Amino acid sequence: MAKGLTSRQEDYSNWYNELVVRADLAQHSDVKGCMVIKPYGYAIWEKMRDALDKMFKDTGHQNAYFPLFIPKSYLSKEASHVEGFAKECAVVTHYRLKNDPNGGGVIVDPEAKLAEELIIRPTSETIIWNTYKGWVQSYRDLPILINQWANVVRWEMRTRLFLRTAEFLWQEGHTAHATAAEAQEETRRMLEVYADFAENWMAMPVIKGSKTENERFAGAVDTLCIEALMQDGKALQAGTSHFLGQNFAKAFEVQFSNKEGQLEYVWATSWGVSTRLMGALIMTHSDDEGLVLPPKLAPIHVVIVPIYKGEDQLEALAQKGNEIAAGLRKLGLTVKVDLDDTKKPGWKFAEYELKGVPVRLAIGPRDLEQGTIEVVRRDTKTKETRSMEGIVEHVAALMDEIQTNLFERARRFRDTSIHEVNSWEEFCAVLEEKGGFISAHWDGTGETEELIKDETKATIRCIPFDFSVEPGVCVRTGKPSERRVLFAKAY
Amino acid sequence: MAKGLTSRQEDYSNWYNELVVRADLAQHSDVKGCMVIKPYGYAIWEKMRDALDKMFKDTGHQNAYFPLFIPKSYLSKEASHVEGFAKECAVVTHYRLKNDPNGGGVIVDPEAKLAEELIIRPTSETIIWNTYKGWVQSYRDLPILINQWANVVRWEMRTRLFLRTAEFLWQEGHTAHATAAEAQEETRRMLEVYADFAENWMAMPVIKGSKTENERFAGAVDTLCIEALMQDGKALQAGTSHFLGQNFAKAFEVQFSNKEGQLEYVWATSWGVSTRLMGALIMTHSDDEGLVLPPKLAPIHVVIVPIYKGEDQLEALAQKGNEIAAGLRKLGLTVKVDLDDTKKPGWKFAEYELKGVPVRLAIGPRDLEQGTIEVVRRDTKTKETRSMEGIVEHVAALMDEIQTNLFERARRFRDTSIHEVNSWEEFCAVLEEKGGFISAHWDGTGETEELIKDETKATIRCIPFDFSVEPGVCVRTGKPSERRVLFAKAY
Repeated sequence: MAKGLTSRQEDYSNWYNELVVRADLAQHSDVKGCMVIKPYGYAIWEKMRDALDKMFKDTGHQNAYFPLFIPKSYLSKEASHVEGFAKECAVVTHYRLKNDPNGGGVIVDPEAKLAEELIIRPTSETIIWNTYKGWVQSYRDLPILINQWANVVRWEMRTRLFLRTAEFLWQEGHTAHATAAEAQEETRRMLEVYADFAENWMAMPVIKGSKTENERFAGAVDTLCIEALMQDGKALQAGTSHFLGQNFAKAFEVQFSNKEGQLEYVWATSWGVSTRLMGALIMTHSDDEGLVLPPKLAPIHVVIVPIYKGEDQLEALAQKGNEIAAGLRKLGLTVKVDLDDTKKPGWKFAEYELKGVPVRLAIGPRDLEQGTIEVVRRDTKTKETRSMEGIVEHVAALMDEIQTNLFERARRFRDTSIHEVNSWEEFCAVLEEKGGFISAHWDGTGETEELIKDETKATIRCIPFDFSVEPGVCVRTGKPSERRVLFAKAY
Repeated sequence: MAKGLTSRQEDYSNWYNELVVRADLAQHSDVKGCMVIKPYGYAIWEKMRDALDKMFKDTGHQNAYFPLFIPKSYLSKEASHVEGFAKECAVVTHYRLKNDPNGGGVIVDPEAKLAEELIIRPTSETIIWNTYKGWVQSYRDLPILINQWANVVRWEMRTRLFLRTAEFLWQEGHTAHATAAEAQEETRRMLEVYADFAENWMAMPVIKGSKTENERFAGAVDTLCIEALMQDGKALQAGTSHFLGQNFAKAFEVQFSNKEGQLEYVWATSWGVSTRLMGALIMTHSDDEGLVLPPKLAPIHVVIVPIYKGEDQLEALAQKGNEIAAGLRKLGLTVKVDLDDTKKPGWKFAEYELKGVPVRLAIGPRDLEQGTIEVVRRDTKTKETRSMEGIVEHVAALMDEIQTNLFERARRFRDTSIHEVNSWEEFCAVLEEKGGFISAHWDGTGETEELIKDETKATIRCIPFDFSVEPGVCVRTGKPSERRVLFAKAY
C-alpha cells in the first residue's frame, strides 16, 4: 500500500480522508466547513464539468447565471422549501466594515445593516422562479431550458471533503414547461443524462429510481435519483432530478396564456450534481495504493518514467520517452514524461499510483537496446514488457480497456451487493454483516421508513424503475406491500 | 436604428443600458446590485472564459478553487488591503434561520451567530495566501501558478449591468515566486496575455501601462493595466496585473528556504479580468441597431433567413439553407437557420442585427432560380448579392475580415482620440469638447492627481509603457515632469 496511507480494510473512512489529501485533490480550509479544491482535484472536476456541460447543451439547454444572494422573503415563499433549508442558511446581514472607534481593529459597521437579510443560495429555485416570472407570458415563451454552474452554501456542522462541505460547486438545471407531461419527461431525460455520465464517464454503475416522499427534495412533487454503491457497502446518491409540479410557479405567480388564451401555472423541473461526485469517483475505484481514475476523467493518462544511471543514459531515454509521448499526444492523450533527476524511479512509481495515472511506461537502457518497454496498468496492476513497436496504439487501446474494466468491476461488485431479504432478522443480519443494497418489501408509509432508519440507520435509497410490482409483506411491520424497494446505509 | 433603442448620440448611457437588456445579455435582479446574466450574454462570457482559460494554461497555470468566505481577521492582516475593501464587504453573521416563535414567519436564529464574521470574498489574496502558507517550505515548491474562476462581491450602491455590480464573475490568478524578478516577469506576462486577448479576441485595442500609486490595487507594490477607449470617449480599465511584492507573504508568514537554506518571504502576483469585459465589448463595437460582435466571441456566426410565400417555397428554401448551414458548420461556424413561420423577414433582420450576428444570409425563390444569395455584414452593413457557388468559403473568409475590420476601426477611433495637450486650458477644453485620452505632463504627486480629479473628474489611466522619458512641466501645477501620462474620464 502507499506509504503511510491507511488501508481500506483497516479504516475505510480514514483511508478516504487521507487519500483525498495525499493525492492532492483537496484540503480543509481554515474557514469552517469549506474546502480548497487543489489543482489536481480541480482538473478532474473540470473534466466532469465539461462532459456534463456538453451533454446538457446536446439536450437543448443553455447556461446562465443568477445571483448568489436570495432575499429571506423569497426563500420563505414555498413552504416546504424553506423548511428544508432554513437550518443550514448562511445569512448576510451587513454590507460594510469600519475601523473600531475604540481601537479594536476592523469591525462590522452597525449602520450598514441590510433592511432585509440575504441568504447565500443553498439552491436557486426561488431566485430563478422570481426571474422567470418576467420571462414568461405566453406558451411561446416555453420551454425555458437553463442550467447554471455555481457555488452554493449549506451550513454543515460535520463536514467531509467533497462529500459534505458547507460550500460546494455544482450545476443546477431549472426548466419551465407548458404541461406536466413535458416537465416529467424532462425530469426523466436529465436523470438519464446523469446515469449516462456516471456509467460512461465515471465508470460507476448506478441504479435509477424514485425517492420516497420522506426523501424528496424540499418543494418537489417527485424526486428521481441515481444511487451508486461505494466499496464499503454504503450507498451514495450521485444525482437527483426533480419534478416540481407547479409549486414554485404558484409561489412566484408564474403564469402563461396557453394556446386557448387561458392562464395556467407553469410546470417546473430542477436537477443537479455536485463536487460530491468526486467523492463517489474515489470510493468506487480507488485502492490501498491510492487513486484509480477512469481514463476519461484522468488529468494525466500516461506517465513515462526513465530508469537510468548517469546523464548519458538519461538523455537517450528522454529522447525515446518524448518520442512516444508525442505519438500518444497525437491521439489526444495527456502524457507526462518525468525526467526529474531528484527523485528515484521507485518514488515516482508510488507517486503516480497514488495519483491514479491509468498507465505507466518505464524504459531503461536495456529496453532501448532490445526495443522493449514496460507497461503497467493502474487498474489491474499487471506489468508486462512489450515490444516498443506499436506501443502508441497499444496504450491508446488500453485506455478503452481500462475504462471498460473499471465499469465492469464496479458493476460486478454492485450486483453481488444487492441482497434480497424477506424477514426483519435477515434484514438486520445482512445490513450488519454484508452491507450493500437490501431489496425488501416495505408497507409504503413514512412512519415505517422512519422507524427502520432509527433502528438501523438504513434508509430507502430509491424505488428502482426496474423493480416490477410484486405483492408481499413489509419486512418490518408485516403489512401489505406492493413492491420491493432498496434500503442501504448511505453517505 | 433598432426599434425603440435610444441612439448613442441621444444618450450613450441609456443606449448602453437598453441594449444590454434588449439584446438579452443581462438584466437587473430583484436583489439590489446583482444581475442575472441571460443565456445569450452568458454564451459570450463562456467564449471569453474558454479563450482566456486556454491562454492561462498555455502559460503554465492551473485552476483551483478556494472558499467563498474570508474570516474578517484574515482580511485585516494586510493593512492597505483591508482599507481598500472594508467599505464594500458583504458580511455573513449567522448560519441558521428559524420560525419566529411570535408567528412572524422565518427569522434569523439569534442563537446561530458566528463567533467570527465571514466576509464574502471581494478578492481572494488573503484566503489564498493563508493556504499557500501550508504549501510552501522550500524553493522547490515554487513557483505556484494558480488561477481561479469565481464569483466575488463588492457592495456597490450605484450599479450598472456588467460595468459595476455587487456580485460579478471573474478570474483571479495568484502566483508565488522565489524572486522579485520572477514575480515581476509574471506580472508583465499576464498583462501581455490580457492585451493579446483584448486585441485578438475582443478586437479591442488597449494601452498597456502602470497605474499611479493612487490608483494601485489595495496591497500591491505595482499595478499594471490595460486601458481601452469606449465610443463615448471614456476610458475603461479592462484588466489589471499586480506585483504584490512580499506584502501578503509577510502578512500570512509565508516563507521558503532558498537554495542556500536561508528563509525568505515569497514574492507574489495577482491578476484578474471580470464580466466587466462584457461592457467593454459592447461599448467598443456596437451601434444604434444593436450589438456588433467580433466573430471570435459571437455565439452565432451566421443566420440564414428564408424569404418566402407559402409552404412550398419555404420547403425548398429551408433545404437550401440547411445545406449551406451544414457546409459552414463543417468549418467550425455556428449557424442558425431561422424557419420560424410566425415572424416576418424584416422582424428577423432587425432581431439578428440587435443580437450582433456577424453575417446574415437571405435567400428567396428568385435566388434559388438564379443561384444567388444575399450576404449582409453586421459590421459595415454592406449588402451584396452573390453567386451561391463558393458561398461557404466566402462567409468563412468574411469572419476573419470582420474580426480584423472591427479591430482596425476601433484602433483608428482610439488613435485619433489621444490628444496631446500642453496647458491647463487646453486640458480642460479637450476634456470638455473631445473626450478621449489626454496625454499630458504631470508632476508625479498624488496631490496634483487628486486635484485634477476633483476639478475635472479625469483620472490618470496609466503611465504607458511606450511613453518615453520627456522632460516637461505639469499642466496643472507647472512643476517639473519627467514624462507624459494618460488622463481620461473613465468607467
